[in-house]
Amino acid sequence: MADTDTDTNSTTGSYVDFGKEFTRDTNYINDRITADGRPGDDGSPGWPVEAGRYRLVVSRACPWANRTIIVRRLLGLEGAISMGVCGPTHDQRSWTFDLDPGGVDPVLGYERLQQAYFARFPDYPRGITVPAIVDVPTKAVVTNNYPQITLDFATEWTAHHRDGAPQLYPQPLRDEIDEVAHRVYTEVNNGVYRCGFAGSQEAYDAAYDRLFTALDWLEERLTDRRFLVGDTITEADVRLFTTLLRFDPVYHGHFKCNRNKLSEFPALWAYARDLFQTPGFGDTADFDDIKRHYYEVHTDVNPTGIVPKGPDLRNWLTAHGREALGGRPFGDGTPPPPPVAGEQVDPRHTAEGMPC
Amino acid sequence: MADTDTDTNSTTGSYVDFGKEFTRDTNYINDRITADGRPGDDGSPGWPVEAGRYRLVVSRACPWANRTIIVRRLLGLEGAISMGVCGPTHDQRSWTFDLDPGGVDPVLGYERLQQAYFARFPDYPRGITVPAIVDVPTKAVVTNNYPQITLDFATEWTAHHRDGAPQLYPQPLRDEIDEVAHRVYTEVNNGVYRCGFAGSQEAYDAAYDRLFTALDWLEERLTDRRFLVGDTITEADVRLFTTLLRFDPVYHGHFKCNRNKLSEFPALWAYARDLFQTPGFGDTADFDDIKRHYYEVHTDVNPTGIVPKGPDLRNWLTAHGREALGGRPFGDGTPPPPPVAGEQVDPRHTAEGMPC
Repeated sequence: MADTDTDTNSTTGSYVDFGKEFTRDTNYINDRITADGRPGDDGSPGWPVEAGRYRLVVSRACPWANRTIIVRRLLGLEGAISMGVCGPTHDQRSWTFDLDPGGVDPVLGYERLQQAYFARFPDYPRGITVPAIVDVPTKAVVTNNYPQITLDFATEWTAHHRDGAPQLYPQPLRDEIDEVAHRVYTEVNNGVYRCGFAGSQEAYDAAYDRLFTALDWLEERLTDRRFLVGDTITEADVRLFTTLLRFDPVYHGHFKCNRNKLSEFPALWAYARDLFQTPGFGDTADFDDIKRHYYEVHTDVNPTGIVPKGPDLRNWLTAHGREALGGRPFGDGTPPPPPVAGEQVDPRHTAEGMPC
Repeated sequence: MADTDTDTNSTTGSYVDFGKEFTRDTNYINDRITADGRPGDDGSPGWPVEAGRYRLVVSRACPWANRTIIVRRLLGLEGAISMGVCGPTHDQRSWTFDLDPGGVDPVLGYERLQQAYFARFPDYPRGITVPAIVDVPTKAVVTNNYPQITLDFATEWTAHHRDGAPQLYPQPLRDEIDEVAHRVYTEVNNGVYRCGFAGSQEAYDAAYDRLFTALDWLEERLTDRRFLVGDTITEADVRLFTTLLRFDPVYHGHFKCNRNKLSEFPALWAYARDLFQTPGFGDTADFDDIKRHYYEVHTDVNPTGIVPKGPDLRNWLTAHGREALGGRPFGDGTPPPPPVAGEQVDPRHTAEGMPC
């Protein structure tokens, strides 16, 4: 999850609010980085697109951050926006750069992402979340508003896109993308958390019904369409994918989203594998980070901190047969090249490399 | 599970011993009820088979007790041995008769099974476990040694078997049944608990490997044989069945036995459904009691006490195709008639009745 502690009780580091349903804190730093650097409608400062100026900070564990990793790769923004990667676990205060030599991000010089938030707002009161974009000259956070970050990558950073970059948010389809993405967000992306952090049986039961109602809708929608909107990959697919990727390894057991596994939905499972096997999606998936994050951090759901060995994830590599539905994954564009040096997922953390 | 608190720490009611592997307390009251009432080899008193004298106390939640419910039904011992049923949850002290009117067993007059243990041994120091057989005249426990209880039902209570009762422990197959049942016990019946109550990542990882090694062995063994030993249902099948029944609804998620679901093992899943659909097996299955027991009692594994709504259990009723392997489920005998009045599972707790 994106938040470290704001969703619930920041003094105990707990995620489940007993007796209550889960409510996500959706107050973000709303600054935008735009082609012309215009100020925001709400008076927030303008930040201009500028290659080499900003650093995207992620954790591979987090589904909200995973969106930005995928979109940056699909659009070929690696050279324009550098990336710092936090480890899969965090404490009550912050995500940390524990994967880096010495535990320090080599560009920002920080041990904790919190330092970038405090550089911007010394009394920043909310959770320290990923993804975050940091202004490298001032080492201060610009924004952590993840839904806007990927849209701005697609529409404001076009001057720095690679040749053959796809149209992830094409003008004629924006209304439909927004509508589908909204339902996917409320019912699925956030719906799994609503199940897992429910503080009562009643809240859980209601959350479970909402989630599977939405998954049944998606199963039907994707039975005869290759992608969620139009016939190419769009922002809507990216947003659904990062939740589906975590469904069987984490949400099914840890969050009790267990009517059935993703792999028991014929269309949705084939759709997920189709994306997984598309350059830019599965090559960003670090299953070890994903599993460790949820099972180790949420000690009020999993007090032992033990991480399940299963499931066997090699099924992500099986034939999906979705080509038969037609569609043009990258539209008039092309797939991205392999991940750049230094950004590959540890081979032991991939679908083929994970123990089971 | 059979034990209320002896497996771990009786003062805290915890099941996980942090830093350690799970060890089951296998010290039982070893008295036997035999056809001739002979004393035990260890000097324990002899108890004679006598219709109407004993009461079998179970919980439908418990896999060890479930064995006795199945065998009693297969052999038609309902008229000779009455049955008291405890509710699915218990406190640190005892299983309770909370399903009965007034919370009191109508035959024994007890609220707590513990009272029957104390009637026999006033300072009984170990866990209060089901199944237990109680001597009705003295209201004192005779035995809770569940592996012996079902064998004695099959071999000592023959004078009271129904017409057409199967041979569950036939003399020529006893060595093979014992051998298979031993491996099933150490690796599977107890193996799932070893995963779920592991107190360290290392203990869990080792337990998981042992469990799935054994399940792979069973999958192979059952690919071309309809039953575990010989060509009829035996004690070995009963012992495996009660763990398989709980695998997807409980052990897969709650105990992290999640390399794959039971329903993802082709032969083992068809074998389990074959038995489930055989009179005497599935008609003893109370999925609501099963799920509530594990998820509500083991608060150190599941602190919220929330019981998952899933999985969808209607798949237990699908065609299994195992008839093609031949075999004679009841040998020269016949299937048992439906459960007697008052012993049917609540229709809302069956595979077709459970919400999902």
